[in-house]
Order: sequence, then structure tokens, then C-alpha cells
Amino acid sequence: MLCRSNDELELLISQARAFAGQGEVAQYIPALAVAHKHELSVALYYPDGKGFMAGDTEENFTLQSISKVLSLALALIDQGEECVFTRVGKEPTGDPFNSIAKLETNKPSKPLNPMINAGALAVTHMIKGNTAGERFERLLDFIRCLTGNETITYNKEIAKSEFETAHLNRALVYFMKEHGVIDEDVEELMDLYTKQCAIEMNCIDLARVGCVLAMDGCDPDTGKQLLPIDVARICKTFMVTCGMYNASGEFAINVGIPAKSGVSGGIMGAVPKKCGIGICGPSLDEKGNSIAGIKLLEMMAKRYSLSMF
Amino acid sequence: MLCRSNDELELLISQARAFAGQGEVAQYIPALAVAHKHELSVALYYPDGKGFMAGDTEENFTLQSISKVLSLALALIDQGEECVFTRVGKEPTGDPFNSIAKLETNKPSKPLNPMINAGALAVTHMIKGNTAGERFERLLDFIRCLTGNETITYNKEIAKSEFETAHLNRALVYFMKEHGVIDEDVEELMDLYTKQCAIEMNCIDLARVGCVLAMDGCDPDTGKQLLPIDVARICKTFMVTCGMYNASGEFAINVGIPAKSGVSGGIMGAVPKKCGIGICGPSLDEKGNSIAGIKLLEMMAKRYSLSMF
Amino acid sequence: MLCRSNDELELLISQARAFAGQGEVAQYIPALAVAHKHELSVALYYPDGKGFMAGDTEENFTLQSISKVLSLALALIDQGEECVFTRVGKEPTGDPFNSIAKLETNKPSKPLNPMINAGALAVTHMIKGNTAGERFERLLDFIRCLTGNETITYNKEIAKSEFETAHLNRALVYFMKEHGVIDEDVEELMDLYTKQCAIEMNCIDLARVGCVLAMDGCDPDTGKQLLPIDVARICKTFMVTCGMYNASGEFAINVGIPAKSGVSGGIMGAVPKKCGIGICGPSLDEKGNSIAGIKLLEMMAKRYSLSMF
Amino acid sequence: MLCRSNDELELLISQARAFAGQGEVAQYIPALAVAHKHELSVALYYPDGKGFMAGDTEENFTLQSISKVLSLALALIDQGEECVFTRVGKEPTGDPFNSIAKLETNKPSKPLNPMINAGALAVTHMIKGNTAGERFERLLDFIRCLTGNETITYNKEIAKSEFETAHLNRALVYFMKEHGVIDEDVEELMDLYTKQCAIEMNCIDLARVGCVLAMDGCDPDTGKQLLPIDVARICKTFMVTCGMYNASGEFAINVGIPAKSGVSGGIMGAVPKKCGIGICGPSLDEKGNSIAGIKLLEMMAKRYSLSMF
Repeated sequence: MLCRSNDELELLISQARAFAGQGEVAQYIPALAVAHKHELSVALYYPDGKGFMAGDTEENFTLQSISKVLSLALALIDQGEECVFTRVGKEPTGDPFNSIAKLETNKPSKPLNPMINAGALAVTHMIKGNTAGERFERLLDFIRCLTGNETITYNKEIAKSEFETAHLNRALVYFMKEHGVIDEDVEELMDLYTKQCAIEMNCIDLARVGCVLAMDGCDPDTGKQLLPIDVARICKTFMVTCGMYNASGEFAINVGIPAKSGVSGGIMGAVPKKCGIGICGPSLDEKGNSIAGIKLLEMMAKRYSLSMF
Repeated sequence: MLCRSNDELELLISQARAFAGQGEVAQYIPALAVAHKHELSVALYYPDGKGFMAGDTEENFTLQSISKVLSLALALIDQGEECVFTRVGKEPTGDPFNSIAKLETNKPSKPLNPMINAGALAVTHMIKGNTAGERFERLLDFIRCLTGNETITYNKEIAKSEFETAHLNRALVYFMKEHGVIDEDVEELMDLYTKQCAIEMNCIDLARVGCVLAMDGCDPDTGKQLLPIDVARICKTFMVTCGMYNASGEFAINVGIPAKSGVSGGIMGAVPKKCGIGICGPSLDEKGNSIAGIKLLEMMAKRYSLSMF
Repeated sequence: MLCRSNDELELLISQARAFAGQGEVAQYIPALAVAHKHELSVALYYPDGKGFMAGDTEENFTLQSISKVLSLALALIDQGEECVFTRVGKEPTGDPFNSIAKLETNKPSKPLNPMINAGALAVTHMIKGNTAGERFERLLDFIRCLTGNETITYNKEIAKSEFETAHLNRALVYFMKEHGVIDEDVEELMDLYTKQCAIEMNCIDLARVGCVLAMDGCDPDTGKQLLPIDVARICKTFMVTCGMYNASGEFAINVGIPAKSGVSGGIMGAVPKKCGIGICGPSLDEKGNSIAGIKLLEMMAKRYSLSMF
Repeated sequence: MLCRSNDELELLISQARAFAGQGEVAQYIPALAVAHKHELSVALYYPDGKGFMAGDTEENFTLQSISKVLSLALALIDQGEECVFTRVGKEPTGDPFNSIAKLETNKPSKPLNPMINAGALAVTHMIKGNTAGERFERLLDFIRCLTGNETITYNKEIAKSEFETAHLNRALVYFMKEHGVIDEDVEELMDLYTKQCAIEMNCIDLARVGCVLAMDGCDPDTGKQLLPIDVARICKTFMVTCGMYNASGEFAINVGIPAKSGVSGGIMGAVPKKCGIGICGPSLDEKGNSIAGIKLLEMMAKRYSLSMF
């Protein structure tokens, strides 16, 4: 069953919003802490170009961990599948997204997958370009292309805050540098990575990117192949096995669609052959996922039969 | 694209069999160690009742870890989803299937998912019945019903061997008993669990069970609902996120279908809405999956477009 | 400076007893849970046969983990140093005494030292005898000899309770059986080990054993060599590096004498060349050591200059 | 028994040197890799000022991890015992010296002891001074005072090499910065720490420092109290429980004296009330200790009855 009106989504949002009170807005940098806990917005993007939305869908938010899917796509295009997976693994992990312990206990040292921070840093390391600046521009261009929105850019204040406080990510990068997973200047990589995480868009843009992935890399408006089928497939697979931090298994059971969340409260969904979804709800559960956003996706998955399983 | 003849599968088998030499037959009990390394057989079961096969598909093999999916289905029917997941989690893990460390480091102590040994033991613990004997009979009846084969039974010699050597599983059970996850007599549970693992069938039976799961619990021949839709969905989800031990992530990328493997070399596939697959190839890779079986599934997934992603 | 009267010890006890309220009596079996939280008794045994005491020093208590030192001594006598340390390591660990994780992460699997439960079980496994009964009798005889008290025996009720609830120790034993560290019947070893832990004595007996160790294995009354110097030396070394669970490092700094504690609240001290100490105070801190007992040892170490460092 | 001539030590050295071939010189920076594998030298410093020596005792080597004891002593003097142990623990660990996993699994995050790298970095962080330069000068002055050698300085080439390659230590520092254990500029701390590790002396200097610790902080020549008794005691205790990396337990059994090793092949011994020992033998065993140096200490401990146990 397809969604047929914004009103349907409005109704679902009003029900899901009730759960926002049980979570907390991310506090680790001031620019995120000011988000409104009870905000919730959603956009649904069908491959025929139709779209529906509810909530304040014009509001921009930073991608944060959602960007890990897009940097992975670009790294796969740049380096090829074989090369990328020499530096990062393919396996989900029961550990938190920022854990360092497995890097030490696994031999050889290699991040388990591209969705945990260590893996995402190794992936960003593989984006091609002569300078960190050029690499970031290439990523930005790629994302502008996927959204069809040339105005996409990053939030300088948030990037700066995160750059200054990213001690744990620096620990991960230095650990990987010791083990040869990463071999560039740490501060340059940190600069690139924190800008990547601070790229901003709204729910409609995000739903469109989800739709491109859902349609095997095909632009829903022009029909143009924006990224190879295999790259889109790999991205969706990681979104299922490790897209929702260490709640991915539960999400796969309760919702059953490829999705990736970020600490700003965003979630991108890519339902194979069906549609793209963009959500933003800044109140997070203890695993770091939008608490109302997950509830909303559960409701949408039931109502529109979105589960893959 | 659908398979149209046994010859197609024969051809794929002959190509996949070439990889068997790179693996090893399981050696931990004599009854498994005698398996022929280069054996490979496959059956494909379509929901319209059509089937195709290649290799020695009449040969019985023990389910081993494949049985974890079926005991989970029965426990979910017996106890309900909410109850089952108080004792076992839903998250994939990067650890090996027999690992005990996470039981200690995670608080409260609870196996991460039903596909690792600890989780499967906790699940079998939840199968209803007045005695261990009655519980096993109920499981056996359930499996006979899923296969439509009343002659299904278990291999006494293998059950006995495994019962005698299952030190590691006893360690897991005692650890969980300490933490209140399990509260029955350990030897009774071990007897039940080793019999469960020693249940035998052939590739055709296994493909039929896969087809039931693929068709949301519906019997492909009679149309009867053999298990609730939600139970079938949960089973398939775990097969994707943790069905192939700690190679599940890689398998999801390379093949992309719900599948569960066992140390006897069996693999059951359940392609949503499409078909069931039963494979047996006793030569295992280092993670414990049939090495030629995985190659065969890769080829089938490409040729017949089976990937969900 | 030497202690010269019971009154000195009475005074120290009355000060140390004030800390008992901050701890808790062990609750895991009823027979231990009935202990009086504010009890505290101490005996000091000098090599010239002189002794001082304070508190209810006639009261028996079970050795629990203190017995690990004595079973280690006997195993060393029975099997020799080289053989014993093929099955158990020599290194302290920052993990709790009942942890299983390191058994899995360390390759080859081998308990880190004889003072954690896994190591102590491996040590008891090495005590010689034709039957478990005979092995226990040999251990009991050895302890009677060290105490010079022929009436020493074990508490049947406590042994039985512990045997019935020792799920975690069974987990450790089965894990080690899987890895070839232990190769006897698990229930026999558990029977032997729980009896060993339930051996009872009073503070004076315990102080005398401490004195034997302090005097390099020499009986303080008869001058007879009760155990080889090297065995006494190894025991004292482990008491320093891992005798007080994962508070051993702190205890070494604050007190600085070889000591071993048990969950019944007992502590045995063996100050090289100086004296033996026996303490019982059932109120435990969170690491499982007698909270008032440790305070008392701190005071004694200062007053009588007992620190080795 | 006391040593009475250089010839005694010469004889022991010639026997211990035979084991050097079984180890390897540290390879991680060029300046250490050029050391001669079969070098072995020793100095023995008695509190009456008498000294004996053998081998090339005029040859300077860098302190590396031996410096951890001296920075700890200075931090204890600067901040007091209570303050120091809010940032670093007192417990030995079975993990390698450069491990990061326990920092993550232990809550709150705090290095287990001052002898592993993480703990030593937290200790150096606590040395007082207005600038990193001033803090280093204070440490250097302190060490000049302990050795009685005003010419002691650091090896600029080695400090520079280590500064450039210390990725793992930077990972540890950033991890601790995230958790509030360290709150200074990372590169300043790294500069200070790598200079500290590169402080050079010869065996005689080192033996003299050992003697100061052995004599409770008292200068063996002038009788002056160079550091408080309690600080000397704490240093010696850590040398016993964790001075020889994760071979400390074995060393305590086989040798039984407070000792600290470094990756340059140096070992400082401090036998309470008896003597100080300085050794250099660059061939290392797999745990990172001088292989011939440990053998030499075993021989010396037996011959001169140095074991504390």
C-alpha cells in the first residue's frame, strides 16, 4: 500500500512524537544541544517523483553518521570494492559505535564495518583527491548530485565544535595509523571527517538520497544512473546489518528496512524498489537513534508493508 | 529469472565444487569427520510446488546450527515474542558462534542473539513440554510438519557423540544458569539440544522448510499456514543479520538472502516471496560455513537475481 | 617492633571494627549469610611459638579462597613446579576472581594464576590420589599438619550448599575441559573443590599456617620442614601479586605483606621471617575482601613495621 | 651473602649472555635497532657506597619504561598520593603494556596502574611546572639528584624518533582526554613523555637510583633523604606487582625483587635494605624484557639471596 496524502503522515507523526519525551537530545556539543526535543518531520520519496511530507521538512540538520553511507559509496566508486575491504570489514558488531576494544583484540587490526566510527574514518581516508580540501569538495559534489540540490553545504560551527572535541575519534585514527590502516596526517583526516559529518540537508533531500539507493542508484527524476548498482546494493546491505548502531538487529526485526541514523536525530531509509524516507527527530534513545523516528518507521513499515523480511 | 531445469543446477554445482578443496570437513566428532569433502548437493523449492535439484539430494545430513532457526520458531510460537526476547537478544555480534566473553561483559548477562550457541541454548530452554522427551517430540513434530516428511528423526550416534563432547556448550549453559537465563537441569537441556542438532534430513526437505519461511509460513503444497507470519519474518531477519556465523555481513553483501548454515555443511536459504533452497557440502571454511555451498549460493544469487538488496 | 600483649590487638580491633558497617556479609549461600557483620578476630603467631590474639578467636570459619594457597602448595609438592605451571599461569590480572573472559581471549587457554577461581580449580585438579575422596583426605592431612591441629575438618552443610550453587565454577571447569586444561570428571572435581573451600579452622590455626609460610615452610614449634622452601616462596609471591583478588595491588601498597583472603571474611598473612597472621571479619567490601580485616592489617603493618617494601 | 668482586659478576655475565641469542633487539625506531644484541653489563650498588660491575658499564642507554618509576616518584611528591591515584589505579593487569581495551571496559575509564603506558602518560601529565619545558627540567633535575650525576640528559635523536612514531601512545592519550583523565595539550604531553623516555644513563647511575629506592629514599653517599619513605615504598611495590610488563608475576616468583625494565634492554633493581642494581642487555624476549638481563637477575638472586619472598 502506498501513502496517498500528507495527512496520513501527519497522523503518524503526531502519534510517534509522543515517544520523544523518553529520549534526550545529544549534548556533546552546544550546537546540537539546542535542538528541540519534540521536533519530528518526515518525507517520503517515491521513484515516480511523487512525494509526501509532514512536520517542519524545510529545517536543515547535519547528517552526522548518516554521512557514513555516502562516503562509503564514494570510496567504493573511487577505489573499488576489493580495495575498500582490505581496510575495513563487512561484519556487524555488538559493540557501541565508538568502541576501540575490537580494534585491539581482532588480528589483524581492522575496523569491523564502515558504519562504526573507526570504519567510517578508514573509509573517508580512502576518498580520492590531491588535498583534503579537494576530497571534501568531491564528497560535497557527490552528495549535491544525489540530492539534486546544488545548495547543499556543511555547517561550519558544528564542524568546528566537533573538530575540537573529537578526542575519541582521534584515538581511533591514531590506533589505526599504528596498525597501517590509515596513513595520512591525522588532523587533515579529522578536518575532512568532521566537515563530512556536518553536511546539512532537510528531510526531503534525505528522502531523495534514500530513493536513489532504493532504486539501485538511479535518479528518480532523470532516470540517470548516479552510482553503480553494486555500490547501492552494498550500501543498503550495511544499512540493514549495521545501520542503526548496536540496535540494528532489533530494528531489522521491528522495521525491516535499510536505514541509517545520525546523532542529530536524522534517519535515512531506502526501501528496495519502493521508496526513500527522510526523518528528523532530535530526541535520542540510549543507543543514539532518534526515539520518535524509530517509532515512526515502525508505524510506516506496518502501514505501508515496507519490511523486506 | 527462474531456474528451469536440473541441468542448470548441475552446471553450477560442478563449478562450485572446485572450491571444496580449500576447506576442511568438521573433525570434532568421528561421525562428521567421515563426510566426503567434495560432496555438494542442492535443491530449489518454488512456492508453486515445482522443484529442481542436483547432486546426491537423497543423502541425509544433520541440521546442526540450522536447527537454531526452527527451535526459535517453535519457542516464539510457544512463548511469544516478548517473552523469548527477555532471555535472548536481537543483535548480531562480531564474535565467533561459541564465544563466552560477551556473556560476561554485557550487563545484564544475556546471549546477544539466537544464532550463537549461547542464544540457541536459551531458546531451546524455552520450548514447552512436561519433560525433555516431550519437548523434543514437539520439536520433531514441528519439523516433520514443516518438511511434510513424517519420517524425519535424529541421528542417535551423532547425538550421543556430541552429548559426550559438548564441554563448551555446558560451560555456556552453566554460565547462563548462574545469571538466571536458564533454570532447568543442565544435562536435560544438553540432551535435548544435542538431539535437536542431530535431526537429519536431505536437501529437498531442507529446501521445503526454506520455502515455508520464504512464503511467510505458508505450506507451498497445501496453502496451510504452518507458522505465523511474524514468526517467519523474525526467523528470516536473524538469518540475514546472523545466520552465517561471523561471516554473516560478508554473506549479506555477496549473496544477500536469508540463510542459515550448520557445521555438517548444510545451508538453508529462504528467499522472501521467491523460493527455498537446501544445500549440503561438508567442506567448511574457517568460519564454519560450507565453502562450496557459499560459492554455489553466490552463483545462484547472481543468475536468478535472488539478492534482497 | 613486636606485639607484646593481647591488649594491643584488642585496641586495634576495636578501631578496625568501625569499618565493618560499610561492607556486607556474603549472601550467595544461607550458611555464610548468617555471619555476624561486626565480628572481628585476629591471631598473631611468632616463630618462637609466642602468640597474641583478640576477638572470638575460637570461632571456626571456612577457608574459602584462602584454601587456594594450600592446594597450590600441595599440588607443587605432588607435581613439581614445572608441571603445575603448564596448566596455570603466574601473572596477576585486573579481572575479578570469577571471570571467564580471559580464558577465551588468551591463547592457549590457561588460567592466568592460581588465585583466581579458574586457576584454583586447575590446581585442585592436580592434587594426587586414586580417588577424589583420597585426594581430599590428602589435602586435609596436609592442612592438619600445617596447623598442627588434627581435628580440622570441613563444614558439610556449606560444602553441600556451594556444590549445589557452583554454576559459575562449573562453567569455568567445562571451559577448561574443552581446552584440555582439565581432564577429569567435572562433578568429582566440583565435589573435591567445594569441600576444600569448606575446610574450617579458627584464627589461631590460620595464623599458624601463615607462620609456617613466613618461616620458609618450617614448623614454628618443632622446627620440622613441613613444605619445601621453594613451595613456601612461590605461595608467598602469589599472595603478594594476586592474594587479595583485584585489590591486590592496592593492598600491596597500603599493607605490603603476603596475604590471602576468602569470602567468609578470613585473611591469612605470612610476613617473611617475621610472623603469621589469622583474621576473620565477615563483612566484605565490593571486591570480596574483609573490610575491617584489611583496615586491621593496615594498622598492624604500620604499628609493627610489617611491610616488605 | 654479598658480592665481593667484579670477577663474580663477570662470571655471571658470561653465563647469562648465552641467552641473548634467543631474543631480539627492539626494532621500532632505528636508533634502538642498532644496539648490539650480545651486549650485557651490570652494576651493583651497596648502601655503604661500595660498588661492583661487569661489562661495558660506561655505555649510556635510554631509560624508556624505567623512567615510569621516576616520573611516578616525582608526581607523588608534586601532587600527593591521594591525588595521583584519582587518575591512575594500583592494580596489576594481565594485558600487554600498550593495551587500550581495559581503558574502555573499565568504568570509570582509568589506567590500571602507572607502569603500563596509559598510566605512565597520566602520571607524567601530573608533573608540576608552568610549561612542558619546565616540567621536563624538573624531572631531569630530580633524576640528576637521584643519580648524583649532573651530566644526565636525554638523547635528542631517540626522543625525536619516538615522538614521530608514537601513534599508539597518542591513541591512549586522546582516549584518556575524552574521559577526563588527561586535560592538557596532547602534543605537549607527547613531547614531554618522549623526552622522559629518552633520558640516558649508564648501569652505574641506574644502580645508584635503585640503591636510593632500596634504602627508603636515602642517598647512599650523603645520607640525605632524596625522596620520602612512602614514595620509595610505593615505587618498589609497583616494581614488584607490575614492573616487568605482563611477565611481572613470573619474575616475582623466579627472582623476587622490585625491578623495572625498559625496551632499550635496561633493568633497574631495588632490593629493600640491601642494594641497587643496574643492568643493560638490549636483546629482548617477547614480553619486552631484556632476556639475558632477567637470566642474570635470576642468578644474582640465587647467589646473593636477594628474593624478598
